[in-house]
Amino acid sequence: SGGSGGTMASESEAQRALQYEQTLMYGRYTQDLGTFAKDEAARLRLQEGDTPRPRRPSELLEYSQGRCAPCRVCALQCQRFLISKVGEDWVFLILLGLVMALVSWAMDFAIATCLQAQKWMYGGLDTNVLLQYMAWVTYPTVLITFSAGFTQILAPQAVGSGIPEMKTILRGVVLKEYLTLKTFVAKVIGLTCALGSGMPLGKEGPFVHIASMCAALLSRFLSLFGGFYENEARNIEMLAAACAVGVGCCFAAPIGGVLFSIEVTSTFFAVRNYWRGFFAATFSAFIFRVLAVWNKDEETITALFKTRFRLDFPFDLQELPAFAVIGIASGFGGALFVFLNRKIVQFMRRQKTINRFLMKKRLLFPALVTLIISTLTFPPGFGQFMAGQLTQKDTLVTLFDNQTWAKQGINDEYEYLGILEAWRHPRSNVFVTLVVFIIMKFWMSALATTIPVPCGAFMPVFVIGAAFGRLVGESMAAWFPDGIHTDSNIYRIVPGGYAVVGAAALSGAVTHTVSTAVIVFELTGQISHILPVMIAVILANAVAQSLQPSLYDSIIRIKKLPYLPELGWGHHEKYNVRVEDIMVRDIRYVTLNCKYRDLQQVLHSTKMKNLPLVESAESMILLGSIERTQVGALLSSQLSPQRRLMTLRHKVLSEDGHRLSDSSIRFQISTETSSGTPARPALRKPLKPALKRVPSSPPDSPPAGSTDHTGIALKSLFCANAAAEPTEAQGTAYHKAKRVRISIVEEMILGDKMTPAEILEWEEQQLDQLVDFSSAKIDPAPFQLVEHTSLHKTHTIFSLLGLDHAFVTSIGRLVGMVSLKELRKAIEGSLTGKGVKVRPPLASFRDSTASTTEADTTALRQLWDRHQHHHMPREASPGGDDDDDTPK
Amino acid sequence: SGGSGGTMASESEAQRALQYEQTLMYGRYTQDLGTFAKDEAARLRLQEGDTPRPRRPSELLEYSQGRCAPCRVCALQCQRFLISKVGEDWVFLILLGLVMALVSWAMDFAIATCLQAQKWMYGGLDTNVLLQYMAWVTYPTVLITFSAGFTQILAPQAVGSGIPEMKTILRGVVLKEYLTLKTFVAKVIGLTCALGSGMPLGKEGPFVHIASMCAALLSRFLSLFGGFYENEARNIEMLAAACAVGVGCCFAAPIGGVLFSIEVTSTFFAVRNYWRGFFAATFSAFIFRVLAVWNKDEETITALFKTRFRLDFPFDLQELPAFAVIGIASGFGGALFVFLNRKIVQFMRRQKTINRFLMKKRLLFPALVTLIISTLTFPPGFGQFMAGQLTQKDTLVTLFDNQTWAKQGINDEYEYLGILEAWRHPRSNVFVTLVVFIIMKFWMSALATTIPVPCGAFMPVFVIGAAFGRLVGESMAAWFPDGIHTDSNIYRIVPGGYAVVGAAALSGAVTHTVSTAVIVFELTGQISHILPVMIAVILANAVAQSLQPSLYDSIIRIKKLPYLPELGWGHHEKYNVRVEDIMVRDIRYVTLNCKYRDLQQVLHSTKMKNLPLVESAESMILLGSIERTQVGALLSSQLSPQRRLMTLRHKVLSEDGHRLSDSSIRFQISTETSSGTPARPALRKPLKPALKRVPSSPPDSPPAGSTDHTGIALKSLFCANAAAEPTEAQGTAYHKAKRVRISIVEEMILGDKMTPAEILEWEEQQLDQLVDFSSAKIDPAPFQLVEHTSLHKTHTIFSLLGLDHAFVTSIGRLVGMVSLKELRKAIEGSLTGKGVKVRPPLASFRDSTASTTEADTTALRQLWDRHQHHHMPREASPGGDDDDDTPK
Repeated sequence: SGGSGGTMASESEAQRALQYEQTLMYGRYTQDLGTFAKDEAARLRLQEGDTPRPRRPSELLEYSQGRCAPCRVCALQCQRFLISKVGEDWVFLILLGLVMALVSWAMDFAIATCLQAQKWMYGGLDTNVLLQYMAWVTYPTVLITFSAGFTQILAPQAVGSGIPEMKTILRGVVLKEYLTLKTFVAKVIGLTCALGSGMPLGKEGPFVHIASMCAALLSRFLSLFGGFYENEARNIEMLAAACAVGVGCCFAAPIGGVLFSIEVTSTFFAVRNYWRGFFAATFSAFIFRVLAVWNKDEETITALFKTRFRLDFPFDLQELPAFAVIGIASGFGGALFVFLNRKIVQFMRRQKTINRFLMKKRLLFPALVTLIISTLTFPPGFGQFMAGQLTQKDTLVTLFDNQTWAKQGINDEYEYLGILEAWRHPRSNVFVTLVVFIIMKFWMSALATTIPVPCGAFMPVFVIGAAFGRLVGESMAAWFPDGIHTDSNIYRIVPGGYAVVGAAALSGAVTHTVSTAVIVFELTGQISHILPVMIAVILANAVAQSLQPSLYDSIIRIKKLPYLPELGWGHHEKYNVRVEDIMVRDIRYVTLNCKYRDLQQVLHSTKMKNLPLVESAESMILLGSIERTQVGALLSSQLSPQRRLMTLRHKVLSEDGHRLSDSSIRFQISTETSSGTPARPALRKPLKPALKRVPSSPPDSPPAGSTDHTGIALKSLFCANAAAEPTEAQGTAYHKAKRVRISIVEEMILGDKMTPAEILEWEEQQLDQLVDFSSAKIDPAPFQLVEHTSLHKTHTIFSLLGLDHAFVTSIGRLVGMVSLKELRKAIEGSLTGKGVKVRPPLASFRDSTASTTEADTTALRQLWDRHQHHHMPREASPGGDDDDDTPK
Repeated sequence: SGGSGGTMASESEAQRALQYEQTLMYGRYTQDLGTFAKDEAARLRLQEGDTPRPRRPSELLEYSQGRCAPCRVCALQCQRFLISKVGEDWVFLILLGLVMALVSWAMDFAIATCLQAQKWMYGGLDTNVLLQYMAWVTYPTVLITFSAGFTQILAPQAVGSGIPEMKTILRGVVLKEYLTLKTFVAKVIGLTCALGSGMPLGKEGPFVHIASMCAALLSRFLSLFGGFYENEARNIEMLAAACAVGVGCCFAAPIGGVLFSIEVTSTFFAVRNYWRGFFAATFSAFIFRVLAVWNKDEETITALFKTRFRLDFPFDLQELPAFAVIGIASGFGGALFVFLNRKIVQFMRRQKTINRFLMKKRLLFPALVTLIISTLTFPPGFGQFMAGQLTQKDTLVTLFDNQTWAKQGINDEYEYLGILEAWRHPRSNVFVTLVVFIIMKFWMSALATTIPVPCGAFMPVFVIGAAFGRLVGESMAAWFPDGIHTDSNIYRIVPGGYAVVGAAALSGAVTHTVSTAVIVFELTGQISHILPVMIAVILANAVAQSLQPSLYDSIIRIKKLPYLPELGWGHHEKYNVRVEDIMVRDIRYVTLNCKYRDLQQVLHSTKMKNLPLVESAESMILLGSIERTQVGALLSSQLSPQRRLMTLRHKVLSEDGHRLSDSSIRFQISTETSSGTPARPALRKPLKPALKRVPSSPPDSPPAGSTDHTGIALKSLFCANAAAEPTEAQGTAYHKAKRVRISIVEEMILGDKMTPAEILEWEEQQLDQLVDFSSAKIDPAPFQLVEHTSLHKTHTIFSLLGLDHAFVTSIGRLVGMVSLKELRKAIEGSLTGKGVKVRPPLASFRDSTASTTEADTTALRQLWDRHQHHHMPREASPGGDDDDDTPK
């Protein structure tokens, strides 16, 4: 029965897998993630839980008598002390920060070398334009193709940003293979190659992922020393800190990193995790910058993209409308970027022919995209109109530049120094260059981020935003050559400040975060533009949030990861919708005294993954919830061929059938109770399935997640149950039971001798038996809501506790169920649109957790009445005992 | 019965009130806050809920026919649109920001004027030192005394910081009178006077409170227009935003404000509230600074305490140890400050004689403290050694100064300009002045913040920290005259930077926050010292958190507000403690089929405020929870004299008793069901209590919080219950019922004719009746935990949902209870110390929500068995029907 149950379960899993489309976003999910993840987690937990903890050497040593024993004991105590310290949070956080700083610095170094190599190659071949072009185009194509191929082979999970996945993981879902060493290696190497190619890709999202993997690996490594790293809740806290470290050491922005990681990954944030994030991110950023100082790149620790705007008069009050314009335009731009990115993915996915072709030649798409982009940026070609020769870092440095490029509208008055040269074109002016740059980079970035390599979109967007800000700033400077301020002092307009504002606004709009403001302050080392930046970022967020989901949420939807949309601002109606408005009332349930036929009906009529278990259909008191797979297992074990054969055998051996049943039960009890050691897989080998199968036995493949201890309890429970009338003497001996079992095996080998009609009849009989739940895994406390719980509170509870369903009860009675799906629909308004009545605003006044409404009272009354009138023996339905034809 | 129930309730409230000590912290809590607050909230909700919503004029107008009707309809539709917009979040947040900016600016202006006046008075009297002294001392004493008296009279709730109270309120507790207009006025005026006196007090904590009151008042005001402001959850979200506004407009620090308010008020933070905070705080800070520009105080928007440190080389890597020293020392200093502050309060409270004297003369203590402090700061006196003449703001400006005061150890080489003069003393050097300043200000601030005026401790601590930082910085500058950097360029040490670091570190240590780092960046307008500041703040926090609670938590404990301690970092054992280790197993419960005698016993044997209601003692299935007061009310209504008289009357009128019961029930149904309008208090006046009292009637004072609709349901329900055999014809007329009732009233007037023995007998009889729960308020879904829930998760759930107790169930069966008290004890370690077994680290592996453990299985088995054996009629206990002697 165990085998057939397993087959059934895997079949249903395969079915469910079909619900998830194959995605072009290259994080392929071929299984129902939620279910799979839970099973996986349970499996892992069981595995690790079963391993007995090895004794520490010191514990053993204290018993040994020797001359230098005190000495050694002392040394071991020191060692033990050190090991206990290893378990402390701060040690872990420091190690994480250190490792990530080293990784970040090494990667930056490698990327810079790659870019330097391209520049050197391009520069060396300046005699022949064709050769130059070949070099310019081939180099990134090779790198990107390598990166895509490498990741594809080693760990396809390493593809993409990683922030959407981290958001899902922090919500409590376990994504398989997402935090492994293989993925770590694939991501680090893939990212280095991808960024080294000079494509418009970012490293911020992947860094969040890398840091998380680093934390997971580190905690696994440290758990070899201490025992404190196995806790799930703690690991999630550590992952949250790791996300902060990822952003922090990527930009050397500890505060912005913490805030950004909170905004993009969390719905609810525990303030106690805040410290961890700050601590680790600060340490990481510190080490990251210290490495630069030690490497003589910098004289001391300063910002990554240091600006030198004047402090005394950063901007005039009258410039604020221009900043607001940047904010609003960035909002639209950000929404457009998200939209474009999604459309590209969807277009590629829908075009069957393209899709099939690309699926076959997985590396063609990246190569093609790289080819197009690098052709367009080729400096002697079209690249000359869009500063194509500058790397991302150089672009940002020039855009944040202190001086005005277009003085008094005549752009060649200003002396362009060094890399600024790239922005000047003899036959056009700087405005044209900026506009071309913005437009070209916009679609290039949106396209490039769909390439299946490890890459983020933050930095490209940041650069585009900076360019847009610079454009507005230069326009303002051209419009007001002597500044707006009318007083005695002349304060010229600083276009670099506009670039800073634009960068923060656009990246904020794409990611739906405000903390990009803090990131720019930390990146530039100046906070003087705080108010313009904040205003622009908030406006950009307001516009973008009302138009599109954030880039990360968009990817979550594309990848079909389990998610729960946020409650936006200004949705009053959310406070007035209650659970009773959105819940599914007509749910299937399993009663404690139901028959197998009922189970079958329930399985046929619903697709719910968790079925509520109620006391009886009349009382509806919720006792727990049972997984669908468990119900399936119960059913298939009841109808298993083995069991059928048993029955057959019984009929044949009817003369001593009674003794058989008795004795085999006796035997089972004796083996099981005498086995004190955990996990005896040898006994459960499918090689001798009949050995442990007795009539009306539960499927003895133990439910995953339940420990062996429980298994014993369950079995003894069942046995007591089956041997309902143990009045006979238990004098049957071991050898007798053995002989009987051997005869059963013989019977099985002889084969199935029942006709199909007989089988059908037998199955019908079996279905009319009462279900024995003792072998099923039951969740004793499924999450419950009341009908009056507001949508707002429900959302809060779901997102905090990472639920995917909750039962609605009223004084213990099950009245409905709410799952993530209903909640999602209610929030996205599709349910409200379909005519669910939204309560009048004042209705919420009647909301009191302790109030007794009519419905509650009625329910209470029913219970009360039941007690007053002393339970009618309603359980004595004709199906109860009459059909219970188990052999006695 | 309602009256006697009320008396009983108020008595028990008074009893409970004694548990709360009278506090010296001047927020006097003479009632059990939790219970009181809930009742109050329920009362308010009921009140508002009962008021019928007035019809909009436009709704009526559409029916009226006139010539310019379309015109008016259009205008009204516009108006309606505007009104609907009023309900939107952003309008509310903008208004809040605007109002708070105006308040902040006006207060700053008033405070500056006050301080100016003192300076002017002091300056004008420079001919006579005694007169000068009198003026210097009298002015602040008068102001502080006025402030203390004014707040005491108008609203004692306005006293103190307000952050502890806001933390409590945001946790879900309703504190009475904390967010009213009276408190607002008292706080604003009291704070202005207190700060105008020049005492070392801060405005930041009170501003959080002021902003919250402002938000509460504003939402009440706006609810006159729109209907969206009544929701409790929304109000809490708005309060969270208001806290951010408070800090934001106080320091013109929007980002720091949001973060600081999150850190000090929240345990869990919803990221969706984050936007609100940022939006409102930015707007507020913007307006606050724009007002300064319009007032010609500033040329443009810049930071409040702008610094001008060099950008290219803010600090050397080798200076970092000095910054770390500042951090660690600040950590100790911060802990000492909290300790000192608490000890002063406790000392004053313990000294009975002092306490009694001060209680009588409430204004003497403030006056005395002010006198001492102002005497010591008198500039020609001791004040000359501690820069006594500088206001708080001037002190901060000078401490953040760009230049080094003590060059090469010779302090008079440097030319002190303007207000810097105050730090120089001819007979001592700047180090001595700084040390004296730090020591004196330290205890002065700790003392001054215990004065019963609206005041915070943030700014004084901030100033002390800055002075300490400056001291270290000046020492470093004296030690390394040419800087530490060994390269060609000479970069001198910037002591101002040390002052910034010190300010952030000490204020962070006292408040246990990291966001003070962000606040200093925003205050100074420079972020170049980010790494030193972060390092110092984190170290300071680490030290301070391991020694003392934060200042706000300390005040919460002193004021005995309901609180839940945080889970610190590095407490691994918290992950291994489970609910079953800390829960109370031996709890009293109420069964559905219990007698009044059982209720009495339960009330006598436990002090729990919420009693679990279970199906029966055998099944222990949890159905809901019932409040202690409700149980008391049930009991007292059963034993009420009125009911006794009824019984008596019945005996007398036994010949037509049957018809009486029937008819009066009939009457009640008719009145209640015909009354469609809500709330008819006239019917319920205690003047004619007998009018609605029928035998075995429930107490008809409606339970607070249940609406009238529910009331009807309850009553009709009861009636159906009492009229269990309505077989007779219902032909009795209204006048007959009236006559009968009149006779009952007569009987009551005639007085109690039972002897004490009879009464006792009657009461015994009554106690043996089964309890009728239909009139009691029952919480249908009390929060439930499972035995395996970890302490960590329990803490999370308690702090997120603001619970104060939760029942522990196992497959529906009640097995225990956890309240805030147990949780608090478990976290603070006192329970663990007392021998609660802490699970071995690996035990957590067996933790799976879906696992079936032995205990669960047993429980399930019991239920299963019950169903198999068809309920024994155990409810047919002798007490059931025999003692049910209600007249029929």
